[in-house]
Amino acid sequence: MHFLAQMEVTIPHDIDTEKLERLLTAERERAQELQRQGKWPQLWRVAGRYANVSVLDVESIDELHELLSSLPMFPFLDIKVTPMTRHPSKVD
Amino acid sequence: MHFLAQMEVTIPHDIDTEKLERLLTAERERAQELQRQGKWPQLWRVAGRYANVSVLDVESIDELHELLSSLPMFPFLDIKVTPMTRHPSKVD
Amino acid sequence: MHFLAQMEVTIPHDIDTEKLERLLTAERERAQELQRQGKWPQLWRVAGRYANVSVLDVESIDELHELLSSLPMFPFLDIKVTPMTRHPSKVD
Amino acid sequence: MHFLAQMEVTIPHDIDTEKLERLLTAERERAQELQRQGKWPQLWRVAGRYANVSVLDVESIDELHELLSSLPMFPFLDIKVTPMTRHPSKVD
Amino acid sequence: MHFLAQMEVTIPHDIDTEKLERLLTAERERAQELQRQGKWPQLWRVAGRYANVSVLDVESIDELHELLSSLPMFPFLDIKVTPMTRHPSKVD
Amino acid sequence: MHFLAQMEVTIPHDIDTEKLERLLTAERERAQELQRQGKWPQLWRVAGRYANVSVLDVESIDELHELLSSLPMFPFLDIKVTPMTRHPSKVD
Amino acid sequence: MHFLAQMEVTIPHDIDTEKLERLLTAERERAQELQRQGKWPQLWRVAGRYANVSVLDVESIDELHELLSSLPMFPFLDIKVTPMTRHPSKVD
Amino acid sequence: MHFLAQMEVTIPHDIDTEKLERLLTAERERAQELQRQGKWPQLWRVAGRYANVSVLDVESIDELHELLSSLPMFPFLDIKVTPMTRHPSKVD
Amino acid sequence: MHFLAQMEVTIPHDIDTEKLERLLTAERERAQELQRQGKWPQLWRVAGRYANVSVLDVESIDELHELLSSLPMFPFLDIKVTPMTRHPSKVD
Amino acid sequence: MHFLAQMEVTIPHDIDTEKLERLLTAERERAQELQRQGKWPQLWRVAGRYANVSVLDVESIDELHELLSSLPMFPFLDIKVTPMTRHPSKVD
Repeated sequence: MHFLAQMEVTIPHDIDTEKLERLLTAERERAQELQRQGKWPQLWRVAGRYANVSVLDVESIDELHELLSSLPMFPFLDIKVTPMTRHPSKVD
Repeated sequence: MHFLAQMEVTIPHDIDTEKLERLLTAERERAQELQRQGKWPQLWRVAGRYANVSVLDVESIDELHELLSSLPMFPFLDIKVTPMTRHPSKVD
Repeated sequence: MHFLAQMEVTIPHDIDTEKLERLLTAERERAQELQRQGKWPQLWRVAGRYANVSVLDVESIDELHELLSSLPMFPFLDIKVTPMTRHPSKVD
Repeated sequence: MHFLAQMEVTIPHDIDTEKLERLLTAERERAQELQRQGKWPQLWRVAGRYANVSVLDVESIDELHELLSSLPMFPFLDIKVTPMTRHPSKVD
Repeated sequence: MHFLAQMEVTIPHDIDTEKLERLLTAERERAQELQRQGKWPQLWRVAGRYANVSVLDVESIDELHELLSSLPMFPFLDIKVTPMTRHPSKVD
Repeated sequence: MHFLAQMEVTIPHDIDTEKLERLLTAERERAQELQRQGKWPQLWRVAGRYANVSVLDVESIDELHELLSSLPMFPFLDIKVTPMTRHPSKVD
Repeated sequence: MHFLAQMEVTIPHDIDTEKLERLLTAERERAQELQRQGKWPQLWRVAGRYANVSVLDVESIDELHELLSSLPMFPFLDIKVTPMTRHPSKVD
Repeated sequence: MHFLAQMEVTIPHDIDTEKLERLLTAERERAQELQRQGKWPQLWRVAGRYANVSVLDVESIDELHELLSSLPMFPFLDIKVTPMTRHPSKVD
Repeated sequence: MHFLAQMEVTIPHDIDTEKLERLLTAERERAQELQRQGKWPQLWRVAGRYANVSVLDVESIDELHELLSSLPMFPFLDIKVTPMTRHPSKVD
Repeated sequence: MHFLAQMEVTIPHDIDTEKLERLLTAERERAQELQRQGKWPQLWRVAGRYANVSVLDVESIDELHELLSSLPMFPFLDIKVTPMTRHPSKVD
């Protein structure tokens, strides 16, 4: 089951930098772990923004939410989720 | 070079149905042709909407515009284009 | 799997009234058929608008799209879909 | 009488964490209390967001406001309220 | 029970003028009938727009929807409904 | 002369609570004073939000601004003002 | 009493051109008549748009609405009205 | 050359009040200086908001930007600039 | 004097094709004429949209409006104009 | 390859002024360096705003993102990127 997830990152300018470093490191590890599990087949950086475009492949909406809300940076993410299905013109 | 293209389709209710059928058939053929050429690696239907989420892989912005504006349904498409680059956490 | 679907209906003022009647009748039958199948557990009219709030219970996103795009009035619907999961404070 | 309530939660990053814990615990208790009273028949988490979709069943608008404004997290909630009525195609 | 209803009127330029006249006359009669019934205590014209600001006093949301959707001009109205309750600083 | 005033209240979470209490008390007194003067005939709480819907009856725009900007909570108010006139279908 | 009025003009492409010419001529005459009466002290064209910025000087909101709704092109105007008062830093 | 400038003022609630007082005094002096130079022919307060509507008369866009960015309160202003030209129906 | 002009083109689907062809030819000639006069130094197509990004170099706002409103396609253009001035970090 | 980049700058009012000075100096040097490299052919200040309009000429989207995200002020920039291609009416 596939979802498009468009994530904008907003980091308060007065956040504790050490705390932020820990979060970013954990975020990177978590994102790579999920990619290796095949849950996160598409991960792109939006050019010019602190934002990403992702395609997530999960078994259920519950799993989708667990995945996203488990991201260490979740409190600083504004995520727009779009459920996607097979396009009638899709060529395999 | 990759672009996210989010296309919303709006078809006037009083359009000539035969003309529309011809356009839709040509659209499908054109989309599949581009997919076979490797230009259109991701094509999804947005659940619940006459809209799609696409990832286009092209050599230049010129080619991107030629590809999109060559779509027979182009006059009925509202396309939001987002240039994407490699994400620092991307796992190959 | 549950989705919130918020549907706004826009009917062109110059549509053929007989065609519209047929569509509305078919829409009603289709909606009731889906409710009887347990796919459409919540269907509310938004007070003051030609719009509805629905909760759809389906097996997959594919089924969600088939259900919505099979609605006879689909061409006149603007549908906002929100994937929903169990709330941590939910009491059964 | 039914209302759709769509709640987005925004928590300032520099809030006192103990205060926040107390609020969240109280929020959970209050929400479950209202559910047991039958006032809050639908409570869903929006996948990917710190937000919920709720259906509230109350006797009056006054009661609706008392219910929502009594939520400990009310100062951090942006709530969109939609009054709902029976849909003509609703099947009991 | 009180609702604020903000109605914007959009009339297609190519509508049949006789049909429109009939609708407007019926609209005026219906609005005055509802006012005499005490259902429509506040009805204002928004200066500079074909729009109104209304306060409706009804027994239920069902009645609210019946009232609004019974307006002959309903197909040409975009109505924003806001449920209102007593303000803590209100002086009787 | 009547104006609709829709006020959304946003209170910074880290405001000094004693200062806030003083402001809220002064706000309440000021609002009730203006109501007793007949300047504020309609004051409603928007259900589910820290917001109000008001109708103000003043002699001039100057007076309208003095009234609103004199509110102790003015710095925390986002006010949308709509000038209103008699509706042609108004029944006295 | 002064109001800012920002008017966007939208003319349907299939409108009868003779009817439009009559309306535009009448509009011009009406606008100049109101200017000569001192009601319309500021009238500017927005560069690059079929839109204007106006300041209207009237005795009441009722007069404001009569003035604007009497414009022959009123059905094709989207008008945003802003009540204005004397600025504390204004130099006479 | 005339520009409409619509300025919304947003002052952080935790700003140093003495600093703010100095800025506001300097702002007032600067605004009056520019008015006396004939650069700021129209300055109105928007009723109910900490905002103004201004017409600026300058020799060039460079001068426009110097004027606006020289305002002591510039960091707290959100300014929407609209270039204006003579309206064809303008009566001198 | 430089302005950014962002133009979105919307062509009604039922427009007379011959009339449209004439307009497009005239538009192209007019745009090229203005470019040769040095009035239109930057003209780009927005990739994926029937829209352009232009920089116009004119002597006055009056000339800007004459230029834009003289475009044969003006009735089908939605133009957003941004006045621009020299950037302090600009390198000649 | 050309991109339009529209950058709005938002600087928190309580930022450390020395840190800000260092960032602004570095920003200016970086911007001028990129201009000398031919990467930043167009750089304009938006009149009346702390914002700029830029045209960037790069070899790839990757380079575009490196360029923009390397700007010292990147954390305080909201950048809207528009890919541009040759316009069919462009005169060389």
